[in-house]
Amino acid sequence: MKRPTIADIAREAGVSKGAVSYALNDRPGVSEQTRARILAIADRLGFRASAAARALAGAPAKVVGLALRRPASTLGVEPFFMELVSGLEAELSTRSYALLLQMVPDDDPAAEIEVYRQWWIEGRVDGVLLCDVRAEDPRVPAVARIGLPAVVVGPPTEGELLPSLWSDDAVSVTEAVEHLAGLGHRRIARVAGIPELAHTGARSRAFAASCERLGITGATTVWTDYTGEAGARATRELVAARPRPTAIVYDNDIMAIAGLATAQELGLAVPADLSIVAWDDSPICGLVHPPLTALTRDIVAYGANAARLLLAAIAGEQVHSRLDEPAHLVARASTAPPPAD
Amino acid sequence: MKRPTIADIAREAGVSKGAVSYALNDRPGVSEQTRARILAIADRLGFRASAAARALAGAPAKVVGLALRRPASTLGVEPFFMELVSGLEAELSTRSYALLLQMVPDDDPAAEIEVYRQWWIEGRVDGVLLCDVRAEDPRVPAVARIGLPAVVVGPPTEGELLPSLWSDDAVSVTEAVEHLAGLGHRRIARVAGIPELAHTGARSRAFAASCERLGITGATTVWTDYTGEAGARATRELVAARPRPTAIVYDNDIMAIAGLATAQELGLAVPADLSIVAWDDSPICGLVHPPLTALTRDIVAYGANAARLLLAAIAGEQVHSRLDEPAHLVARASTAPPPAD
Repeated sequence: MKRPTIADIAREAGVSKGAVSYALNDRPGVSEQTRARILAIADRLGFRASAAARALAGAPAKVVGLALRRPASTLGVEPFFMELVSGLEAELSTRSYALLLQMVPDDDPAAEIEVYRQWWIEGRVDGVLLCDVRAEDPRVPAVARIGLPAVVVGPPTEGELLPSLWSDDAVSVTEAVEHLAGLGHRRIARVAGIPELAHTGARSRAFAASCERLGITGATTVWTDYTGEAGARATRELVAARPRPTAIVYDNDIMAIAGLATAQELGLAVPADLSIVAWDDSPICGLVHPPLTALTRDIVAYGANAARLLLAAIAGEQVHSRLDEPAHLVARASTAPPPAD
Repeated sequence: MKRPTIADIAREAGVSKGAVSYALNDRPGVSEQTRARILAIADRLGFRASAAARALAGAPAKVVGLALRRPASTLGVEPFFMELVSGLEAELSTRSYALLLQMVPDDDPAAEIEVYRQWWIEGRVDGVLLCDVRAEDPRVPAVARIGLPAVVVGPPTEGELLPSLWSDDAVSVTEAVEHLAGLGHRRIARVAGIPELAHTGARSRAFAASCERLGITGATTVWTDYTGEAGARATRELVAARPRPTAIVYDNDIMAIAGLATAQELGLAVPADLSIVAWDDSPICGLVHPPLTALTRDIVAYGANAARLLLAAIAGEQVHSRLDEPAHLVARASTAPPPAD
């Protein structure tokens, strides 16, 4: 079980550690015969030198790093993240890259920055992806300063110190609000995610602007932490108001599904009494009854594009922020004209 | 952006590469003054020597590997996998271990074995977890032969060449069948996963045995690939039969939710006309309407326990297969007595 070292090989071969090093690194300094004998012993002992030798020579690790800021207990709940990882993997695997995941506390950017610094110094990764970026996020300038190739998966950051791959959430919010306004809704609520996240902010500004433009004065927003429980609670709160909203847009699929069940429990028919729109469409949205009208985009492809952008940055190309496809509205059976007042 | 090598440091410091190596590895052969100067230059150039130096010295990588056999496009659909990863991460992060993920083709065990061999030879990982193990899985003897510390997440394998962390699915199947039989069901169907997987086989044997013991002669099984589409299709097929089953047990949550929606679409009331039991309970099962009766267990804790077992194996402890908590039935609102014939 113990891992053999250069010293073990040297002892076994009866040569110096230097000779072992020459042989393993294919450098002059040992005879062909001795080299062959050393390599055979190294192989027999299961010596693991290649990565180390390659790292010493400055070769790539063929690994991309992703630090996860979300609590472990909630990672499994939201399909978005796993779909993103699937897309990253799909692209990385075609280039024989692996993905290194590490959990970091979600309220301690300094700890996360230290993870990146260690990864880079130790040659464990060739580049990293930053997710869940906040407004004025200290990770962005820190990673730029370290010099580690990186791509932000999210809206461009101030000064664009790092390239971003993002989608224009304003386009999607506008489609959702126009769809509901077109059906005749005038009291539209939004169950939003974490306000500090940059993309939540973008959605909020666009929601306010669209509602104002379309003359929807009864627009309400409730903030949550993205969990189903919070989505259910927000729904109960919203439909208890008088007059109550006739449509609710949810910032993720889990909250929309919880909202649907909550409405049904309270005896509200969806969509006759209440229309529901889910953001981040996922297979589940099409599987519930009624299937949910949703803002849909190909998150697996988004992940693959992010991987491609990062691999270009790692290859030393000049990489600029890029706009990915926005989510578009897919009308299913959870939206309809509002009930008569 | 280019990574500095030992040669760069040697050039900058005006010393030999050997001297740089002595300094970086804290070995005699250079004066304290020269060592300090070399370290300062290495630091300034951002030289990444630690991992390489440590690997050469046989120190741990502090990384655990997980090869993913599932197609990237389906990874995001099923919460089980991400919950398992969450649990692994939760435990690994407390020990400053990271998780290395790599996609492998799901029909090519040789490719996966080669990934493990490379990881081990190159010192990238200290141990691996094997998932989705099949009956007579060639990966198990291969990993045992490589000598790589490993834990199987699933039923014990033949000859127990590697330790397993598993849960007794027979206990859970029996609870589900007894619950339904207790409600009066006599025609119970099962929408099963992939028959080649070892845990699917264990479930099938236990389902047949429980049904036989309880005198349930109308037991049917339909095989699927775990997707929602397959779950919907299987449900349509099952309820079209005459006499139709009065209860269906699904091998995952996604298929159960698809089955619920399919039944509702076909005008069948759940649970009045059809009872539904979901295996691998996930937050979604409690969020749909009606909430699904499910076989529930703490998958995050299961992942954490698997990580703990693997870390013990990595530490050189004698590790034996361990039975984790089985899934237990949580009766929610999707099961009730069958309709009168």
